[in-house]
This record gives sequence, structure tokens and C-alpha cells, in this order.
Amino acid sequence: MTLLEKAKLAKQAASQMVALTTEEKNQALLAMADALEGNIPYILEANAKDIEAAKQANVTDALIDRLALSETRIHDMAEGLRQVVELEDPIGEVLEAWDRPNGLHITKVRVPLGVIGMIYEARPNVTVDATGLCLKAGNAVLLRGSSSALFSNQALVKILCGALTHTKVPEEAVQLLEEGTREEVNKMLKMNEYLDVLIPRGGAGLIRSVVDNASVPVLETGAGNCHVYVDESAKPDMARDIVVNAKTHRPAVCNAAETLLVHESWAKEYLIDLLTALKEKNVELRGCERTRKLAGDIGIVEAKEEDWGNEYLDYTMAVAIVDSTDDAIAHINRYSTKHSEAIITESEENARAFQKRVDSAAVYHNASTRFTDGFEFGFGAEIGISTQKLHARGPMGLPALTSSKYVIYGTGQIR
Amino acid sequence: MTLLEKAKLAKQAASQMVALTTEEKNQALLAMADALEGNIPYILEANAKDIEAAKQANVTDALIDRLALSETRIHDMAEGLRQVVELEDPIGEVLEAWDRPNGLHITKVRVPLGVIGMIYEARPNVTVDATGLCLKAGNAVLLRGSSSALFSNQALVKILCGALTHTKVPEEAVQLLEEGTREEVNKMLKMNEYLDVLIPRGGAGLIRSVVDNASVPVLETGAGNCHVYVDESAKPDMARDIVVNAKTHRPAVCNAAETLLVHESWAKEYLIDLLTALKEKNVELRGCERTRKLAGDIGIVEAKEEDWGNEYLDYTMAVAIVDSTDDAIAHINRYSTKHSEAIITESEENARAFQKRVDSAAVYHNASTRFTDGFEFGFGAEIGISTQKLHARGPMGLPALTSSKYVIYGTGQIR
Repeated sequence: MTLLEKAKLAKQAASQMVALTTEEKNQALLAMADALEGNIPYILEANAKDIEAAKQANVTDALIDRLALSETRIHDMAEGLRQVVELEDPIGEVLEAWDRPNGLHITKVRVPLGVIGMIYEARPNVTVDATGLCLKAGNAVLLRGSSSALFSNQALVKILCGALTHTKVPEEAVQLLEEGTREEVNKMLKMNEYLDVLIPRGGAGLIRSVVDNASVPVLETGAGNCHVYVDESAKPDMARDIVVNAKTHRPAVCNAAETLLVHESWAKEYLIDLLTALKEKNVELRGCERTRKLAGDIGIVEAKEEDWGNEYLDYTMAVAIVDSTDDAIAHINRYSTKHSEAIITESEENARAFQKRVDSAAVYHNASTRFTDGFEFGFGAEIGISTQKLHARGPMGLPALTSSKYVIYGTGQIR
Repeated sequence: MTLLEKAKLAKQAASQMVALTTEEKNQALLAMADALEGNIPYILEANAKDIEAAKQANVTDALIDRLALSETRIHDMAEGLRQVVELEDPIGEVLEAWDRPNGLHITKVRVPLGVIGMIYEARPNVTVDATGLCLKAGNAVLLRGSSSALFSNQALVKILCGALTHTKVPEEAVQLLEEGTREEVNKMLKMNEYLDVLIPRGGAGLIRSVVDNASVPVLETGAGNCHVYVDESAKPDMARDIVVNAKTHRPAVCNAAETLLVHESWAKEYLIDLLTALKEKNVELRGCERTRKLAGDIGIVEAKEEDWGNEYLDYTMAVAIVDSTDDAIAHINRYSTKHSEAIITESEENARAFQKRVDSAAVYHNASTRFTDGFEFGFGAEIGISTQKLHARGPMGLPALTSSKYVIYGTGQIR
């Protein structure tokens, strides 16, 4: 089947999905979960082919780890689907309702988006996680995974769709784009007639390429050049705990901190202790001139201009001393990717100014940036973390996969 | 100043705007309104240059009418700004708030979008209307009007910015792109670093071009191929009144109906009367084969395939007979631009099915499509009518010009 045929089928399926009940969608998710667990050898066999090809292509161990499935990982995917069953169905919720003087009753109702195009890299679990969330929110999904995971994705989608045949969710609601050529993907980016939104998940290059080339609306996810600012009045222990946690708890994820900003008068007293704590966790520090003057003898590389904009995703941190909360805000608004930032301070005034004027999806007072996450926020699951300002910002749960429409009740009104 | 310089200034201004109070923004709007009314001769003089150039270029009278300002129209623009003052300020509203078991207090707060790029045609009043709404919602705005209205727009922006110098809103918050070359506009469409959203307003060609070429997120507005479906049980008088109103009340606007669908058993009894009423209003009818068989002798042109997708914006209407509500829904979901559709029926069951399954921004039961409008919905003013599903759908009031962010209060939490 061509991309166009798959997109058409997905659109048809989406038009049936809007009429399904929560119960019907949940039954489909449970059937999918059971089918995954009932076909573990089949999935692992397909996955082995991907792993073998990846090894022959000499990819990194990290990439192979992201690609590799195991019995446990398959159970985890199935469990993930069962958790989505537990989530509240957002569809049909009346968001607003009011009457007009002419007697019209206007309601704003939550509806599915329609067809969601997922474009993602390596990890095959995204195939299952994204499908579960999209279907629960009443959408069809057109999946384009990495070509390096093609065998795994084909096996997973075959099992998911097979499970749907005995449910009210049409099996055409899940489509996998198997031809992964650049041309095919470029076509997908411009299918405004069939796709309602694209969600790219993966590295900065993938996301940039989708944003730059798509005419279909995009939900931009991910890149996180996150900052922690330690203000004049910060408690030293709290500052140390939060900075160390934000940097080293899991450096490879988008909500890890990349740049530390420190108020100069706090720095004079406590900076060396803080940087020593980071050093003890094997963090490489890249400091501004003032940082190096103040704490240079513990070994701090000179920060270059590009360090301020870098998402290291590693045990590396840029450090700058600033003169005020205003300077910290200006630095962040200049360099951040608008993901997550934190201020550590005992000053309510500075905290409120920082939270108001820092232009990022999540702005923390006295907490680690690591909390920007669907599970940590209590959403139960997320399809990604939006760093754009339209439609959804921050961790995206089921409501981000919905739209609304106005349903209006009249008795013959005309203008 | 170059486009880039203007965009940078707008972004700087936006970062100041987030901290303004409602009172400060309202004072700026009132100062702008007064300044417009205090400079009527200056504005009319500039407008006369545009009119003169348009006449020399032999443009249509309709275009000249859209371009032309008058003392009354300037008062109307000022009055529009004063009405925006009366609208509730959406900024700062706490949309959601909850506590996590770890003690984090998470709030979702409404914030400005940032910098809004408006790309629009001919009518200079958009310059004032859009500026008022953008500023009230705490945004800066980069305006790109039609080159045919350049003198008028320059005069208006000069006056608006001049009025801002005595207020807390920075005058850099309103920027006009004066070089209207295609290259400049194409650059604007890709300024993701400086623009948070683009709103194109104008003909289908303009909107298509922006959607196809922009990498900045777009709020798609406007095109309306709206349908009225007259179901089996529709009351004949109500059906006639609504169809005639939806088609002829103001045919040139996007919420006017373009296609009439009629259930075949209703058609046998009442179609000729309904079409005769449209004929009496000078509506040209283009019918399907069954329509022409049933009512051909009152003079109905043969509808071609392209008629079903056409937004006539004129006294022309396509007419098709369908066998069921299901067929009407399928026809609409195939051809409509997802703007506004109506079902006329006494059957609650058919009405609910239609409203659930028709995939459009506004779906009416027993009312004219002409109500899809910010004022008619009670929003007070609108920046356009969104026909896409992301971020905002249907008439867009002030909330559509906002985003949200998570503001999180901790006491030292780490993961």
C-alpha cells in the first residue's frame, strides 16, 4: 500500500473513531495488551533482525540498547496500554456552555484531533505507547518509526492491528509507513488533507527537519537546555541538592539541567562547595570568566559562547555568575529552549518575577527541573513534552491529543 | 530598519509585556483610540494616496471599498479599541492547580503567546483591530499588510506607536513590515526564533501560501465551504428561513452557506418551494442530477465535481439530494473546509449523530451557519475564525492569542 492509501484509510478510520464509547476504546487497548504478551517470541524474532542489522552497521551500544526489546520490555509495553485504559477519556467533555440572548445554546466540546502522524527514532516502544494514547483520545495514527527498527515495528503493528479486528476500533486506525525514504517522509509532512498534526520525537535534527519542512501543523517536542538559577538568598544545602539532582539524576533526558547560573554574592560564599559537589559526581564544568576566577582552581574549562546554548545530555554543565535575578532571566530567555527552568531562592519577590518573566513551559521555585514529566505531573502518561506555545505546552497527556468543536443548539435562529 | 531588527525589537518588547497589568494595557489601548481620532486628516491623507494608486492600477471597486477609510471608519476603529478595553484580560488566569504527593504545587497559568505575526490583505482596519487584540493579550505584533494599503498602514502604525510612548506598553511592541516583497515575507514565515505564531487573514491563496511555506506555527483562518443539510423531518418554513439566511444574508463572508443538501423524501415534497425561495433572492443554483430531475424546470445549472468544493462567496449555491443523514455527513466530511455546517431536523437522534460526526469547527442544529462569529458567540471581538484543529478552533477571541505555562512551587523537592 502506498503512503497515500494508508493516509486515506487512517482518515476513514478516524471518522468512525469519533463515535466510539470509552468502553469500546478500552476494550481495544486491553486486546492489544494481551496480544503483545501472547506473541512475545514473534516480536523478539523480528527485533533480533533489527539488532543484527544494527550491529553489522556498527552503531553505538547506546543505540542498540534503545532498539533492543526483551520479554520484560514487552510486558512493560502491555502494562503501559493497560495504564492508558485507566486514564479518563477526554472525549465528549463539555469545556464551556452558555446561552445567547437569541436563545442559541452554545457548547464547546472536546473531540479527537483526527489523524496523528508520529515520526520517531529508534525505540520501538514508542510504536505501542503512541498508538495507545492516540486511540484512547479517539484518533487514528500514522506511524513512521526509524528504519533501523522496521522489523520490530512491523511485528508490533501487525499484532496491534490483529488484536483490533475483534474490537470496535477499526484496524485501519493504526498505519505504519514502511518505506522510510526521505521522499516518503517529505510527502507525509505535506499531507494536510489527511493528517491533522505531526508529532516528531527524537533528536534535535529530526525535530528541526520536521518543523522546517512540514505544512501539516506540528507539535514540537523535546529539546531541553534547562537552567537552574541560584539566587542571592538560596539555602546552600537546598541549592546543592537541587543542582546536583537536576544535572546528574539522569543527564541524558530533556529535563536535565545544562546551565547553572549563580548570583555573584551567593557565589562568593558557596560556589566552590556547589561546584565541588558536581565534580564529585564527575560533572565536567565549563565556566564564565568570573566563575573561573572564583573557583578556577578546582578545574573549570573556559565556557565558549556555544556552551550557553548547548544541550549536553551528558555529565557536563555550563556555569555563569550573574549580578541579579533580572540578569538570570535575560540569560535564560536568550539561550534556553523554553523547556524547564528553576530558581532557588528564599525571596518570594524574586521567585515571582522569575516565574512570571522566564518564558519556558515549566518554571520552578525551589525544585528540580527533573519533574517536568507526564508521570511526575500526575497525567499518567505523556506523548512528549511540548516546547512550543501553540496548542499544548509542557508535558502532553491525553488532552493534548484532542481538539474542540462548537456544538450549537437552535430553534430556527437566523441573522 | 530591516525585518530582522524589527522582529528583535518586537521580541524584546514582548518580554516586557508579560509583566504589565491589565490597567496598563488598557491605558495604552485608550491612548491609541484617542490618537486615531485626533489624527483623522493625517490618516485620510495617507489613505488617499493608496486609493489613488489603486485607481491607477485599475483594481475593482470592491477592492477600493475595502481599502477606503472615512471619518466614520476611523471612529469605528477607535471604538473597536475601546471595546477591547472592556474585554476581560485573559493573562494570569490560573487554568488548573493541583498538589502532588511530594508536596509540589503545580499551577497552569495563562500567559501571552509572545510575538504574533499578522499577514493580511487590503483592509487597513485589520491593522488597528489586530494590534488592539494582540496587545490586550500581552503580545507584541509584527504586521504585514497589503502593499496596496502601505501608506494607510504606515500612518496608522505611526499614530498607534506614538500614542504608546506615553504608556507602559513599549512602542516597539507594534512593528510594521514596510517592504512587502515576497522575499521579505518568506523570511518572516521562517523566523521561528522571533515569532511564536503567524495568523494569515485574507483570501484562500494567501492562507495556502502561508501554511505551505511557514516553519513558524500558523493559525489557519477562514475559508468556509459551509453546508446546510435539510433532513427528512425538517419543518419546511424553518428550513426555508435558515437556508435563505445562510446563503443570502451576506454571501461574501466565510460563514455563508455554499452547498445545500436535502434528504430525498423531504425533497419530493418541499424542494421546489425551497429552491424557488432562493431563486427569488437571485441565487444561481447548481444541482446534482436528482435535483435537476426533481426541480429542473425552475432552471438549475448542472453541478460539476468542483462545485462541491467551491466557496462561491456569491449568490450561487450547489444543491445535492442525499438518501440519509449518514450520506449528508459523508458528503460534508469529504468536501467541507471544516468551518460551519447545519442540520435542520426534528429528529434528536439525527441531530446528535450529525453534530458528533461532522468534523467542523461549528455544527448547528436548527440554526443558520451565519452565527459563527466572535460577536455572535459573545466573545466581543475576534482575530479570525480558525478552521484548523490545533490550539484554537472556530471564532478566536483573546484566549486564542494566549498560551499557558506551568508555574511550580516547591520546598526543595528532588527526584
